[in-house]
Amino acid sequence: MTEFGGVPFSTEDAVLDSRRTDRSGSAVEGRPEAVLLPRDAADVAKALRWATSTGTPIVPRGAGTSLTGASTAGTGTVVLDLSGMNRIVSLSAADATAVVEPGVITADLDRAAATVGLRYAPDPASHEISTIGGNIATNAGGLRCAKYGVTRDSVLGLSVILADGTRIETGTGTFKGVAGYDLTGLFVGSEGTLGVVVSATVRLRPIPAGLTTIAASFADAAAACTALAGVPGQPVIAELLDAAALRAVDAYLGTSLAARGSALLIVQASTVDSPGVLSALRPTAVSLEVSSDGDALLHARRSALPAIEQLGRPLIEDIAVPRSRLPEAITAIADIAARWQIPICTLAHAADGNLHPIIVDDPSRPAAAASAADEIFALALKLGGTITGEHGVGTLKREWLTRELDPANLTLQRGLKNLFDPQGILNPGKVL
Amino acid sequence: MTEFGGVPFSTEDAVLDSRRTDRSGSAVEGRPEAVLLPRDAADVAKALRWATSTGTPIVPRGAGTSLTGASTAGTGTVVLDLSGMNRIVSLSAADATAVVEPGVITADLDRAAATVGLRYAPDPASHEISTIGGNIATNAGGLRCAKYGVTRDSVLGLSVILADGTRIETGTGTFKGVAGYDLTGLFVGSEGTLGVVVSATVRLRPIPAGLTTIAASFADAAAACTALAGVPGQPVIAELLDAAALRAVDAYLGTSLAARGSALLIVQASTVDSPGVLSALRPTAVSLEVSSDGDALLHARRSALPAIEQLGRPLIEDIAVPRSRLPEAITAIADIAARWQIPICTLAHAADGNLHPIIVDDPSRPAAAASAADEIFALALKLGGTITGEHGVGTLKREWLTRELDPANLTLQRGLKNLFDPQGILNPGKVL
Repeated sequence: MTEFGGVPFSTEDAVLDSRRTDRSGSAVEGRPEAVLLPRDAADVAKALRWATSTGTPIVPRGAGTSLTGASTAGTGTVVLDLSGMNRIVSLSAADATAVVEPGVITADLDRAAATVGLRYAPDPASHEISTIGGNIATNAGGLRCAKYGVTRDSVLGLSVILADGTRIETGTGTFKGVAGYDLTGLFVGSEGTLGVVVSATVRLRPIPAGLTTIAASFADAAAACTALAGVPGQPVIAELLDAAALRAVDAYLGTSLAARGSALLIVQASTVDSPGVLSALRPTAVSLEVSSDGDALLHARRSALPAIEQLGRPLIEDIAVPRSRLPEAITAIADIAARWQIPICTLAHAADGNLHPIIVDDPSRPAAAASAADEIFALALKLGGTITGEHGVGTLKREWLTRELDPANLTLQRGLKNLFDPQGILNPGKVL
Repeated sequence: MTEFGGVPFSTEDAVLDSRRTDRSGSAVEGRPEAVLLPRDAADVAKALRWATSTGTPIVPRGAGTSLTGASTAGTGTVVLDLSGMNRIVSLSAADATAVVEPGVITADLDRAAATVGLRYAPDPASHEISTIGGNIATNAGGLRCAKYGVTRDSVLGLSVILADGTRIETGTGTFKGVAGYDLTGLFVGSEGTLGVVVSATVRLRPIPAGLTTIAASFADAAAACTALAGVPGQPVIAELLDAAALRAVDAYLGTSLAARGSALLIVQASTVDSPGVLSALRPTAVSLEVSSDGDALLHARRSALPAIEQLGRPLIEDIAVPRSRLPEAITAIADIAARWQIPICTLAHAADGNLHPIIVDDPSRPAAAASAADEIFALALKLGGTITGEHGVGTLKREWLTRELDPANLTLQRGLKNLFDPQGILNPGKVL
């Protein structure tokens, strides 16, 4: 067989080096042997047939924005870089669906949908740089999940190339369908370990009319969560920033949010619900701003990550807990930060109970960040939650996956991997 | 081992006869040997350990409201009747979740949630008689799916007894989670062929404030669909009844809906969206009613099935098509009815492109109904849709499943079945 199945590739040093790691900053040993640059599904099939015939481990990659090492590629592996397959194949306003290649940038799809009055709802913080394929691989979330759910809830069907190069179609182009077992859902969140998505049919949503955004400061996170619990209806967005995050934002933007209160809650709601939201937040808020311009009030939230990056290398963690345990989680995370004497800024998709404790790494004390992260994962499980709400497992949480899942579940997980990829060539060492 | 693993059981004639079929009216040969009546998860585990050790086929059953023969049980099988496991184990307003046993009646859960201002969103037409376990088995839908999605979108985690009696926990109690492959989604819609659900953690939703319901008659279904396409926002409900359905309702309720127009569209929307809904429907509607009492206007829709039952035994079909193909589907179904000279009344969850063509069986010409059904499934596939939107495959659509799914997909489906149930004792002959 032709080298790499005849698929375009690069073995240039710069290309190989750029594909060895991802946004997690973690790396495995060495670097990939080559980076394949498929142009279409046929190229992906050729690459996988070649990989199967040679037993070569393949690391599928979108934009490399994984925060868990899911796209890291080391010695002996070949990267399948899908970022060049970035066409929006079709977009139907009448059906409220789009068919996209995996390399499409998420925000680009959202903008294309907006031209016909629709939105692609999932909006991970990385949406301007991450790809739909990567979002599918991790079942990515975002701010709007409060209302619209995660990536899984917007994916109707997939075209997938299996490990041996066979192409299968899953799901349908319809909003509902229960013809056979849910293979679509199985591929979503599987981090490229079960097959390679070459096309996705996604659901688009109407852009809601007349949203009101309210930013309210509270004495502490517990007060903010209590107030949020009294909010009527389903907020579109409900974001919480803790004191450490607010201090970082203040230093970056020149604001004085931390002085107002130790927690900032930003809620976006429909105009029907917003009077009730105001009534719920006002009694205990120490300050409150209302705007029909959501972007202005969300600016602090969207600036949080660059703000924290000023403090050092951020390790972006991702746990979820039952909503009622959110205050307890935020307090416990602050305790962990104090105990390990390491900054941890916490952002939360509060309506979903999904927290991003962002640990600022101290290179002089590498054990501190790792220990703090371990305590955060243990906390999530103790509170009845999960070690990952929307970022996935990758390499960094594999150990913890075995603590979250019971042995019989893990046995089935390994059985699934073996069923789809008996040779173990698809993103080996990730998830399981 | 003790007979049936020591689980309470019945072998009374009346009990066996009552569990041999389901609401599809179809049956397999003979009747079950026994009906097991587990009281809890431990009983289910005992039953499955016994079944594995004896190689006995087990037919899990809720309320027996399957419309596809998924609960039919014949000679040599033992029915595992879960309707007695009907406790709402917990319901948390703060977390907006509930933990329920599989035998809980769907509407009972919704009413329990309503006492704390929440709803369990999925509302199949059978919600007053069907169980959560059965809803999970078929990934049931309903009227409110337009806004809230199907059962899968409300199930966060499951406790499942596997074929060999092992208990596993899937998913989490949180709204988001991507720790490992999505086993929860795999069990939802699997019709009892992969494992037996003994507990489900479900998501509850806020009850939306201030809904407006609009019932509009149109000259034909195409005009109704065109008008619906112009509706802003996300309707909570959008139901369509065709001319044949309206005639049946008129005969049953003494109304004169069919005289107004050949299609009735009932849209429920938020007060923000309702002015826009009115603007979209009014120009082409031949009559229009607006009410804040949704139940009154939905009465015609909810009466449709009993109305059609007056005409004869209804075969309730269930296809879904891309939304834009809905008018074409309705017209083609009317043509099929005319060609086979058999009444077909069509109800549609119009916002989802999900149609229920209800064929009124003519016992003197059994081939007519079957042929019409076949043409309807072929139509669904021709229009880019699916042979089942929310009722599942059961025994009645197995043949058609092999036409909808490509061979590689089917191979994986069979591999999944074999992985979870290597002896093939779980609801054999269903789905695959």
